[in-house]
Amino acid sequence: MKKAVVLLSGGLDSTTVLAIAKSQGYRPYALTALYGQRHDVEIEAARRVAAALGAAEHKFVSVGLRQFGGSALTDDIEVPKDRDGSSLAATIPVTYVPARNTVLLSLALAYAETIGAFDLFVGVNAQDYSGYPDCRPEFVAAFEALANVATKAGVEGGRYAVHAPLMHLSKVEIIKRGLELGVDYAMTHSCYDPDEDGRPCARCDSCQIRARAFSQLGLPDPVLRRG
Amino acid sequence: MKKAVVLLSGGLDSTTVLAIAKSQGYRPYALTALYGQRHDVEIEAARRVAAALGAAEHKFVSVGLRQFGGSALTDDIEVPKDRDGSSLAATIPVTYVPARNTVLLSLALAYAETIGAFDLFVGVNAQDYSGYPDCRPEFVAAFEALANVATKAGVEGGRYAVHAPLMHLSKVEIIKRGLELGVDYAMTHSCYDPDEDGRPCARCDSCQIRARAFSQLGLPDPVLRRG
Repeated sequence: MKKAVVLLSGGLDSTTVLAIAKSQGYRPYALTALYGQRHDVEIEAARRVAAALGAAEHKFVSVGLRQFGGSALTDDIEVPKDRDGSSLAATIPVTYVPARNTVLLSLALAYAETIGAFDLFVGVNAQDYSGYPDCRPEFVAAFEALANVATKAGVEGGRYAVHAPLMHLSKVEIIKRGLELGVDYAMTHSCYDPDEDGRPCARCDSCQIRARAFSQLGLPDPVLRRG
Repeated sequence: MKKAVVLLSGGLDSTTVLAIAKSQGYRPYALTALYGQRHDVEIEAARRVAAALGAAEHKFVSVGLRQFGGSALTDDIEVPKDRDGSSLAATIPVTYVPARNTVLLSLALAYAETIGAFDLFVGVNAQDYSGYPDCRPEFVAAFEALANVATKAGVEGGRYAVHAPLMHLSKVEIIKRGLELGVDYAMTHSCYDPDEDGRPCARCDSCQIRARAFSQLGLPDPVLRRG
C-alpha cells in the first residue's frame, strides 16, 4: 500500500478526506498541526477521527502561527456570527489565517519526505471557501510544483502529488461522500467558537455552513444539540 | 521604507543577508524559526545579530520539525566531521532537513502577510550547498510563484519577491560582502555541533566551510579560538 500524508484538523472536511484517501487504497499517515488553535476540543476530535479511521500513524506538530496574529482563529478578533449566506463568499473573511495552507502543506511535505510518502491529501475546497486564496486549484498546483523542486526525494526522481479531493464539491456533496464511506460525523469538530465544554456555537460561519448542508440532506448535524 | 522579512538563523549567511537587506533600503523584520535545534547558542546568536543590525522587530516562531526526524540537525544522527572538501557537494548530506526551507519560507510568508511586507530575504546559496535541493534558484522561483497565489495580499494585487542575494556567491564572496557592510562575524554561530559552552567544534562541514573561506581571505574566523 502506498503511504499518504493526510492533513487532519478533526473537522468535517479533513475527516472526509482521510476516509477518501483510505478508500483509494492509501495507507494514511495523519498530521495535525497545532497552530495556536484556541480549543483543545479540535485536538481531541482529530485524535478520535485518526483512531476511528485507522490511521497508520498520527503526528501532532506545533507551529507558532499565533506569533503573527492576523486572524480570528489565532488571535483575539471576534468570530463573526449569524452572517447571511450571501456575505460568506463575498470577501476574504477575518477567519483567514495568513499563509495557513502553505504552512500546513510544508509540514505535510516534511513528514512525507521523512516517511517516504509522495501523496499529500488536504481538504481545501474552492466552493464553500471561495474567499480563501489558499483553497483554490492554482494554489494546489503551485504547491505541487514547489514540492518537486524543494525536496531530495523530488530531485532524485520521486513525483509528489497534492490531492484535494473536495476541491469542487459542495458541502452537501462532501457529507454525502463521507456518509457513503461510513464516516460518523458526530466525531468531528468544526466550530470556530465552542463553549467551555467544547460544544459548537451553531452561529459562526463554520457551524452554519455544515448545519445548512446537513439540513439540505434532510439530516440533523450530529454535533448540534437539539434546541 | 519598505518592510522586508529576513529569515535569521544567527549564522554567517543569514547575518550577511540581513546586512544586505538593510543596505538595499529595506526595514528588516527578522524571523528566527525554532525547529528543534539542539543548541540555545544559535538562538542567542540570532538575538545578538538582530539587535546589532537594528531589526525593526525580531520574532521567534517554534515549529516541531524534530517530530519528523530525518536529519542530524534535528535528530540524533551523528554530525559528520573532518570530511574533505570534495565530498561536501557530492551527495545530499545527512544534515539536510526535509523540506526545511519550504517550511521556513512559509513562516516568513505568514509573517510578511501579517505586517504588510512583500519582500522575503533568505540566505540560501547554491554554490556551497549544492547538495541541498531547497537551496537552488528553481526552488526560490517556485516559492515566489506559490506566494503570489497563496495569499490574500497576492490575490489582491501585491507581488511577493523572494530575495536570495547569496545564491551565486562563494563563501569567500559572502564574507567579503558582509565585511564591506560592517558585519562583525564574531556575533554569528554556524557550528552543527558546539561544545557545552557554545563554542564551535571546528570540524563539522559548517565550521570547516567558513574557516576555509576566512583563511582564503587571509583572516582568522573570529568565532574560532586560537589553537
